[in-house]
Amino acid sequence: MNGAHSLVKTFLKNGVDTVFANPGTSEMHFVAALDDHPEMNCVLCLFEGGTTGAADGYYRMKRDVAGTLLHLAPGFGNAFANLHNARKAGSGVVNVVGDHATHHLRYESPLKGDIQGISDAVSHWTRLSGDAASIAADGAAAIQASRAQNGQIATLVLPADTAWNEVNLSVLPLAGEQALHRPSQQEIEAAAQRLKTEGAALLIGDSALFGSLRTLAGKIAAATGCRLMADTLIPRISKGAGTAKLDQLVYAVEPKIAQLVGTSSITLIGADRPVAFFAYPDKPSVPEPAGCAIAQLCARTDDIEWTLTALADAVGVTNKTQMVSVSLDLPDIPSGQITLEKVGQALAALIPENAIVCNEAVTSGHKILPLIGKARPHEMLAGTGGAIGLCLPCATGAAIAAPERKVIALTGDGSAMYTLQSLWTMARENLDVTVIVFANRGYQILRNELTNVGVAQVGKNAQAMFDVENPTLDWVSLAKGHGVPATRAEDIGSFVKALRAGLSEAGPSLIEVDCPIQAA
Amino acid sequence: MNGAHSLVKTFLKNGVDTVFANPGTSEMHFVAALDDHPEMNCVLCLFEGGTTGAADGYYRMKRDVAGTLLHLAPGFGNAFANLHNARKAGSGVVNVVGDHATHHLRYESPLKGDIQGISDAVSHWTRLSGDAASIAADGAAAIQASRAQNGQIATLVLPADTAWNEVNLSVLPLAGEQALHRPSQQEIEAAAQRLKTEGAALLIGDSALFGSLRTLAGKIAAATGCRLMADTLIPRISKGAGTAKLDQLVYAVEPKIAQLVGTSSITLIGADRPVAFFAYPDKPSVPEPAGCAIAQLCARTDDIEWTLTALADAVGVTNKTQMVSVSLDLPDIPSGQITLEKVGQALAALIPENAIVCNEAVTSGHKILPLIGKARPHEMLAGTGGAIGLCLPCATGAAIAAPERKVIALTGDGSAMYTLQSLWTMARENLDVTVIVFANRGYQILRNELTNVGVAQVGKNAQAMFDVENPTLDWVSLAKGHGVPATRAEDIGSFVKALRAGLSEAGPSLIEVDCPIQAA
Repeated sequence: MNGAHSLVKTFLKNGVDTVFANPGTSEMHFVAALDDHPEMNCVLCLFEGGTTGAADGYYRMKRDVAGTLLHLAPGFGNAFANLHNARKAGSGVVNVVGDHATHHLRYESPLKGDIQGISDAVSHWTRLSGDAASIAADGAAAIQASRAQNGQIATLVLPADTAWNEVNLSVLPLAGEQALHRPSQQEIEAAAQRLKTEGAALLIGDSALFGSLRTLAGKIAAATGCRLMADTLIPRISKGAGTAKLDQLVYAVEPKIAQLVGTSSITLIGADRPVAFFAYPDKPSVPEPAGCAIAQLCARTDDIEWTLTALADAVGVTNKTQMVSVSLDLPDIPSGQITLEKVGQALAALIPENAIVCNEAVTSGHKILPLIGKARPHEMLAGTGGAIGLCLPCATGAAIAAPERKVIALTGDGSAMYTLQSLWTMARENLDVTVIVFANRGYQILRNELTNVGVAQVGKNAQAMFDVENPTLDWVSLAKGHGVPATRAEDIGSFVKALRAGLSEAGPSLIEVDCPIQAA
Repeated sequence: MNGAHSLVKTFLKNGVDTVFANPGTSEMHFVAALDDHPEMNCVLCLFEGGTTGAADGYYRMKRDVAGTLLHLAPGFGNAFANLHNARKAGSGVVNVVGDHATHHLRYESPLKGDIQGISDAVSHWTRLSGDAASIAADGAAAIQASRAQNGQIATLVLPADTAWNEVNLSVLPLAGEQALHRPSQQEIEAAAQRLKTEGAALLIGDSALFGSLRTLAGKIAAATGCRLMADTLIPRISKGAGTAKLDQLVYAVEPKIAQLVGTSSITLIGADRPVAFFAYPDKPSVPEPAGCAIAQLCARTDDIEWTLTALADAVGVTNKTQMVSVSLDLPDIPSGQITLEKVGQALAALIPENAIVCNEAVTSGHKILPLIGKARPHEMLAGTGGAIGLCLPCATGAAIAAPERKVIALTGDGSAMYTLQSLWTMARENLDVTVIVFANRGYQILRNELTNVGVAQVGKNAQAMFDVENPTLDWVSLAKGHGVPATRAEDIGSFVKALRAGLSEAGPSLIEVDCPIQAA
């Protein structure tokens, strides 16, 4: 057995059976080893941003790690932005990055680069494997690191000779588990008291935002009278009917500040303190009122389930505690001309129960999302690190992790262009994803931001950098080019028809919604 | 005036008047400043790999730097692979990367990341600007760094407050020039002697490979009897009729070794020593025979023009020295079924004088390039860092740097997918680029490399990672989606017709050449 085979066997033994891959020559022995294990699911992405965004989406739904296979420092570079997003989402990912053979690294070959340096800039854990005998143990350590702290970025650099040299392994290493930090009983008691005071908010994140923990958080809010909240960008959240009512912070600074007026304390469970997305001249970086206490009971990397359970006990949640939940309210199917509001209504009416909605619709989303809050119960995944180009890869990974669920991807045209290659992977894997591209023909958010910095008039150069026009992107052709059937919705009737078709048929489809920028 | 304006004025004052941009919110004040200077040419790229690849292509043709405008660490990540290529090409690039305002960096905002860390992994020079008053001087220093050593990667990180705060500048800073290292007269004399001995090779790189210095190198070869050579991947090289005859090293290791049999010494001017692209079990990392002397007379970062001129004097080159040059030999236009050989013949017959050919055709290129060696004089730009996805951005930048010249981009389908967004920039800027996509429906080079590592049979997982099939990419639709007219060449007649049309009309076009993988 060579080092590459020992690594693949270690991955499989530890339950890592999916790899999003964009390999090159230095990974050939690893590819050959994968080839000997058809039980490993290898998903080809035609650009590395697709691999790491898919691994992120996979982790969000599966709550376990997938691997990526990347080619030296430039391959890691292409993967970087979506690793940044995954890191901010708290998703675990195991990257395997091929490098030149150890003896070749002394020469200035074309692909020689600083893999350790670029990996250190985004990974929680990086290790350069030293020889073939170490690689199985290094792989197990990488898996352990990726699962630690509720999910981390772990990067294993694999010089080609560590893959091709022979090893003699009788026992395959197992990735150990690390215990998560838990708050003290005194901290739990203090939080229980604080949540009962006027103006108290409980801001939850990570696994507290969906499934049974979300319900538990809702009951804590009911038992204490506190306000249940969440930050703006969150990796996975339950939405729609039956979910515990929750106020989510908005993106823009002033409305965010307005949302928190009167808040006396923010208790954080599984979340960081809320901050402004960007800094602006004469606007604060943090939105809470002066004197508001910020208390982190449990970080995203701590034991969230234990903390919520202990807190529920401390505040007297029982089987009889009734949480305030969202009621179902489905609008009628709209008709006539297409507008973002009508698209939102149509989505609200048609989102199927248990759907996964990946949202990177940026400005268009601001108009649509409020309308689908009372739809059938579903989960929403959003960009967490602010690096656009997550949506299509994330939808790809989510669909692979949860093949029994419908995936709806809502994306701006500007965002989708960063990683449009994921459309091909959706077609190749026949993934059940309905992609909706809101084609406003520009980086609309940047127009808004230019106004925010006090520029009233947009000149030649700013317009050249904000508009995606002359030529207009033709998403029906782009989708077709990648093998995904597509429709341009000319009116809301054709949108509804295409959405129904996308949701009822297996496999990917794309709907282009023409929503050009309107004068402010 | 604010810091952003002082930086834009400093760029213009120092002759940097082209910026390939993909901005975000943290760069809004810089965008507003660019907007006040319509003499700055801002070229929007819909993905950051397009910006840095274009800046590389621009430098290769203009021999001066363009700027890029990038958005925090993830934007730099997307730009990384083509910066790696630019670094290996010896191209100068000035990156401006927006960061959060200094006071905002203490908070865990979504886009906070390690810009310094990722920049250090590929840039020669990185500086984080500390305040608005420093930024003009920092900008001049960045330009100086990018022009030093015949071209470097310089990255200026611009916290938003350094852009928006007011400054009071009366004098704009000028980027200084740094003298390049020159070899000693003794080294010149020793090289002159060495080149006259049997088996001597002169391996030239960088600016010695095109224009008048290439001719000078050809005359040195004629005067000494040495063999004139170049490495495999070079940023810019004169090709075709009238250029000094030169032997270029091939990609694969064994043929590369065979090319150097009998070589007693390799004198390097403007080039590094040749090495194998990748390491393989039981193959050497360096191709020269045992005992062959490697003498670096002048590094890529040294004074190449001075060195060649001094060497020409030392070996007795006069106005009468006749170099051996390539003679014009245009094949007939082929007809019938399409093959790579016929595509090469058609290109050889039709490449116009002074064209710029960007080559990233990888495996298809191996069959085509030998056929166009005796075409009309042209220049060829190739990937230098081994990170595929350079061709379309590089062609974009070259076309902007040299608008009077025809650009032909030869790319594999696998390579083109990494940065296909550059097609849109070609359409937006109406660039005179004819793109030829060799659609072999896979990463053919990886199939070859798997064979190289001894795997005879390709199984399910390897096939899934090498083939770009099921579905087949439709390049005519992909081009149309980006606003570029395109043709699928079904036979060589339609290829010739489309090539003639592309070369005779202004603006971009794309030709898809269907060349599926043939059984080995």
